[in-house]
Amino acid sequence: MKTVKVGLIGFGIVGTGVVKILTDNAEIISHRLGAKIDLVKIADLDIKTDRGVKVKPGILTTNVDEVLSNPEIDIVIELIGGMEPAKTFIIKAIENGKRVVTANKALLAKHGDEIFSLTEEKGFALGFEAAVGGCIPIIRSLKESFAATQIKSIVGIVNGTANYILSQMTDNRREFGVALKEAQELGFAEADPTFDIEGIDTAHKAALLTRLAYGTSVNFNEIYIQGISDITLKDIDCAKEFGYKIKLLAISKMSGDSVEVRVHPAMIPENHSLAQINGVFNAVQIYDDLMEKSALIGHGAGSLPTASAVIGDVIEIARDILLNVTSRVPVQAFNQNNFKKLPVKDIRQIETEYFLRFNAADRPGVLSIISGVLGEHSISLKSVSQQGRDEDGKGVPLVFMTHQAREQNIQDALAKLNQTDVISEKSIVIRCEN
Amino acid sequence: MKTVKVGLIGFGIVGTGVVKILTDNAEIISHRLGAKIDLVKIADLDIKTDRGVKVKPGILTTNVDEVLSNPEIDIVIELIGGMEPAKTFIIKAIENGKRVVTANKALLAKHGDEIFSLTEEKGFALGFEAAVGGCIPIIRSLKESFAATQIKSIVGIVNGTANYILSQMTDNRREFGVALKEAQELGFAEADPTFDIEGIDTAHKAALLTRLAYGTSVNFNEIYIQGISDITLKDIDCAKEFGYKIKLLAISKMSGDSVEVRVHPAMIPENHSLAQINGVFNAVQIYDDLMEKSALIGHGAGSLPTASAVIGDVIEIARDILLNVTSRVPVQAFNQNNFKKLPVKDIRQIETEYFLRFNAADRPGVLSIISGVLGEHSISLKSVSQQGRDEDGKGVPLVFMTHQAREQNIQDALAKLNQTDVISEKSIVIRCEN
Repeated sequence: MKTVKVGLIGFGIVGTGVVKILTDNAEIISHRLGAKIDLVKIADLDIKTDRGVKVKPGILTTNVDEVLSNPEIDIVIELIGGMEPAKTFIIKAIENGKRVVTANKALLAKHGDEIFSLTEEKGFALGFEAAVGGCIPIIRSLKESFAATQIKSIVGIVNGTANYILSQMTDNRREFGVALKEAQELGFAEADPTFDIEGIDTAHKAALLTRLAYGTSVNFNEIYIQGISDITLKDIDCAKEFGYKIKLLAISKMSGDSVEVRVHPAMIPENHSLAQINGVFNAVQIYDDLMEKSALIGHGAGSLPTASAVIGDVIEIARDILLNVTSRVPVQAFNQNNFKKLPVKDIRQIETEYFLRFNAADRPGVLSIISGVLGEHSISLKSVSQQGRDEDGKGVPLVFMTHQAREQNIQDALAKLNQTDVISEKSIVIRCEN
Repeated sequence: MKTVKVGLIGFGIVGTGVVKILTDNAEIISHRLGAKIDLVKIADLDIKTDRGVKVKPGILTTNVDEVLSNPEIDIVIELIGGMEPAKTFIIKAIENGKRVVTANKALLAKHGDEIFSLTEEKGFALGFEAAVGGCIPIIRSLKESFAATQIKSIVGIVNGTANYILSQMTDNRREFGVALKEAQELGFAEADPTFDIEGIDTAHKAALLTRLAYGTSVNFNEIYIQGISDITLKDIDCAKEFGYKIKLLAISKMSGDSVEVRVHPAMIPENHSLAQINGVFNAVQIYDDLMEKSALIGHGAGSLPTASAVIGDVIEIARDILLNVTSRVPVQAFNQNNFKKLPVKDIRQIETEYFLRFNAADRPGVLSIISGVLGEHSISLKSVSQQGRDEDGKGVPLVFMTHQAREQNIQDALAKLNQTDVISEKSIVIRCEN
């Protein structure tokens, strides 16, 4: 039986999953591929720690060049993540004629233009199914299954850590900090959870989905990113009262000559299908001209789910190697010369519905002043709710749900209200998606 | 720009969608494929009716050989459905060296062994993404994305007509016959709805999913098939009372040396993710060793969604043609020589939970007799409900939910109870899936 030789860089959580699957599922993989996948080198700075998986003697190395410059190796799997040295390693692998599989969403989101161009130039495949939504087959679906469609928008829950925290806050009334600590103890959140809770990881994925959906690259720094660390139980409760749940969403929409790409917590109706995606599950919904609406759901992170997507890519690329062909599908779904660079729509220009929570003075006329300012800014109201009386002199919560409004108008109205004496504390604004 | 030439057999609802997409989305398809797809012939018995789509002059024909034996044509799309003449056409196309795309689940479910073997022998691809779940990318995911996994079971709602009818019965309390008529008027059900409402279409899809998931073919006639035409509003109401919904499910599980493949209406908990799949939407859930649980959701039927899957396959195969290679992925996901033929587990040997509804005599001791017979057959009860009194001499409804029990025991117990005078009318048995 033929053999395809693979080298792994990064023997961490996902890397360990890769080794485990290549061992445990070797037979079923060869029954599908018609060839064996042989892992011949693993490079990591730490080759002493026992990861609980068997590795063949002599394949561990601290010298990454034993992978990158190894003439035996056909496919390089990069799983160290982050910018450098991952970027240098991937570029060197491509330049050495290796085919690459990576789960590195941060790198591809920020330096996609450079890495994908180089890949196109060399003509070999670069697999990155594991970079978005763990084992959810969204990359392959966008590149192949949905190739006949005009995609209009994508909305996704693509960060398991943030979704776990929000689910715990919603279902078990955990405070944000408690839920985060729990997530860290369970291994769902990293010691430094900034990328996950501040929406940055979600934005990396939004950038990649945007690239594949419309054949356009965007400047990562133009993406509007807001995380979940400001969300309180009060927001969760208010959302529930109005029949909503709060989820951290990646939103990407074609919008004329620009693309609307934004990441922020959003209120979605309780009966919305994304509201059912709880815990570490991820979901991506695709809206297009032919299929109306599709959704893919699965584990968004974790060793084995992510590693299964990595090996799915390895198997796909192994088929190219066995047939002795270059890549079949453009690495960015669209051909390089049909690829566009488009600006991201300024967040102030977007239109959506809003949830506004003010801490208002409890005296006659206040509702009239606030609703007056909203009205002046063309913000039309769907519902309003005021509960309780001001018993401790700290004001009363006043909650509005608006109809479709322009972000600029919302921000202007809030600025104006902040100059009055009718509201105290920071006003809470949460966008709604229906 | 290079051109891949395509011929279409069957200018019906999906065929019309194919023509429309190839015209309307020609540009985006060429941006993804790097080549044009040129539809050069359409064969149908009726070439007079205006389908509302533009076709180039001279490409319509009533002579199928102008497609099958046309040396210009690279890919033949078969969309007439059913056994003959579709089977003869597909075999002739393959023998003539054409690559084939079809949505014909009935044919592939019943004659898959023959058609797939011939395809393997010729070495070219045969695309059938549109045969299961319309535009849901389940076929490609099973063949490629999930290639590293050991799939354990698949559960799906894969017939839009049946799901529409059950949704209407549940949400709008329509009687079965009324909902069916409505579905026919809306074009969701055919004039002869037998395949859809009797579960046969769902079983075709279950057979195909089984083939791809485990690399095993089963004898279609061994599949247990029960449709939804016996479901009444009383069952729907009972389900609701117990916190369940009734859905027509395709169930396929690896089970030792056999495969459990069955199609029947099942009660699933209201908060189960499949319970949220309503109307003409379809969903397929995959359980495996690495990803735990994944789900793919989308339009299960209709002209454009189904045609988008057909053209996704055409584009994939066009990439093979442009690279001048044979098929990359085994047509049945597994290599022919690793393919097994396994028996389907006898329905009497399966174990699941059951909903039992009896029409019982309203007199002392009846509950004891019925629960006694169930107990004798090792059927342990989760809950029981009796409502109302027998006011018209027709008995009272007595409802049981059981724990995991063996089908054989359920059937034996029912047979014994039917011999007593404590129940009248046909007892209702609905399997539950959690």
